Amino acid sequence: MDDETIYMGVDVSATTVKAALVNAEGEICEITQEAIGDDPSVVLEGVRRCVERLRDRASERRWPIRSAGVGVPGLVNARTRRVEAAPNLPALVKANVSEAVAELLRCPVLVENDANMAAYGEFVCGAARGRSNVIYIAVGTGIGAGVICEGKLYRGSLGFAGEFGHTTVDPEGLPCACGNRGCLETIASGPNIVRRARERLFRDRSSSLSSLALPGKGELTPERIATEALTGDDFSLMILEQTGKWIGIAVANVINLLNPDMVVLGGGVMVAGELLLNPIIAEVKRRAFAAMAAHCEIVTSLLGGQAGVIGSAMLARDTFR
Amino acid sequence: MDDETIYMGVDVSATTVKAALVNAEGEICEITQEAIGDDPSVVLEGVRRCVERLRDRASERRWPIRSAGVGVPGLVNARTRRVEAAPNLPALVKANVSEAVAELLRCPVLVENDANMAAYGEFVCGAARGRSNVIYIAVGTGIGAGVICEGKLYRGSLGFAGEFGHTTVDPEGLPCACGNRGCLETIASGPNIVRRARERLFRDRSSSLSSLALPGKGELTPERIATEALTGDDFSLMILEQTGKWIGIAVANVINLLNPDMVVLGGGVMVAGELLLNPIIAEVKRRAFAAMAAHCEIVTSLLGGQAGVIGSAMLARDTFR
Repeated sequence: MDDETIYMGVDVSATTVKAALVNAEGEICEITQEAIGDDPSVVLEGVRRCVERLRDRASERRWPIRSAGVGVPGLVNARTRRVEAAPNLPALVKANVSEAVAELLRCPVLVENDANMAAYGEFVCGAARGRSNVIYIAVGTGIGAGVICEGKLYRGSLGFAGEFGHTTVDPEGLPCACGNRGCLETIASGPNIVRRARERLFRDRSSSLSSLALPGKGELTPERIATEALTGDDFSLMILEQTGKWIGIAVANVINLLNPDMVVLGGGVMVAGELLLNPIIAEVKRRAFAAMAAHCEIVTSLLGGQAGVIGSAMLARDTFR
Repeated sequence: MDDETIYMGVDVSATTVKAALVNAEGEICEITQEAIGDDPSVVLEGVRRCVERLRDRASERRWPIRSAGVGVPGLVNARTRRVEAAPNLPALVKANVSEAVAELLRCPVLVENDANMAAYGEFVCGAARGRSNVIYIAVGTGIGAGVICEGKLYRGSLGFAGEFGHTTVDPEGLPCACGNRGCLETIASGPNIVRRARERLFRDRSSSLSSLALPGKGELTPERIATEALTGDDFSLMILEQTGKWIGIAVANVINLLNPDMVVLGGGVMVAGELLLNPIIAEVKRRAFAAMAAHCEIVTSLLGGQAGVIGSAMLARDTFR
């Protein structure tokens, strides 16, 4: 492994910075992470610590770092490469992460939306390897997507493409933080799965989760709902099934519009696995054109929580040649 | 104009074949059309008559026909170039239009979905000239779309991309011919605009169209509704406004997903012009991300009913170089 060329991938989320050294084959050689909060100096400090730690490791092992990619939870302007908005981590708009990383590494650095990075990771060395047209959907605190068209990351005219979580699925639905109402995110994001579960639990006392509906009685999380569903709790299964139905509507729309080879579902909420995947697939079969639905594989992420760092490193590899 | 290189564009709809000789600049030099019906031999006969007529004209003027494009209202397999399904003109699946045209012209012939052809026309020499990412939407008997990504016609993995009319906008809505329910087409296509108007007219007798609600009292058409709206009929204005709202929901979704430079609206129903365009734009402003909505111009077709023949000729020009 000596003298191997290495790429750094950094993945910034609302609560954590993750960074990895990735070789040219997309394998992680070193990985590290730091907790952060929503303050420009805290974000930058977390990024710096991760990057310095990995830089020192690479230098010990004589791995030259060729380039780095940074995935961020926000809208990244394709021309200026600046973060224009980041609803879940507003500090990012002020913190110039790209400059901070470039100063430490003295190599080319690329900033890109985090779902785009994860999509690229799954496309280059994950579930969608070898496919041409792919939609990667991250279901977590928010719902984002990355679109691969004809073997290339599709960014759209400003760089903002992939706002799949803000597909209107219920025209008269709840108001969304984006200003619209009835967005998929208002129903199927992690916090909204919890909200729906909590609202129902006040009425339905048969579930093993019922005690969690009341404030102060422990934390109700999407992971907890998934765990209960896996042990056969009907209420939790129903919540996941309803969630899958709504995600399935939006997935069917994108299949009819873009006729992709594959839809990859990742993000924290997908820990529910088949309990969420199967209702999504069932709804797509009900709604999308049969030929396009039959052609399009719908699968869960292969790289899981590492899709972001791997994709960031691989996009840097392929951008700065 | 002598010895000019010429391309032929053919546009097959459910009722008419239109064909044109188009020069390298996208200008129509000759145009002709024939009525057809849903029978393979009738379709082929109509196509042959148009093509022969234009071939003879070209030969008189010594214009060599370099290549030809044929737009058809159906799903065209990108690999085999066969029409796999054509709900509005099923005869197309059996009629080998491409072979018939190639036999007559002895030049390369390309078959493609009609909305894709019109999209390409608007992109190369219509409303979207010079843009990179464009969605062309044809609102007529059905609702189709063509997608231009990064300056190229995007076909999807099988060639079926662009089924925008089958975006679910009302999850509990009416059944659609495609098998889904609540598709945009079940609300906003020409025949469904008429259906909605008719259903309401039984209850609302104040409109100048009221007499047309009863069978045998003259024909209620989208064009007629547009004409009445232009003269200030409140009922017709309301029908168009509601139609625009639903189309706007689906347009907002595609803007959030693909961040295009422009959305071009064409097809027969768009004769209503601004009376339909303005409610679409208003709904997009309400629902899409502000930055993406502000960037994306939403306009009516520049080439109108000729987008199909011009686009077909231009795609042939650019495919067979």
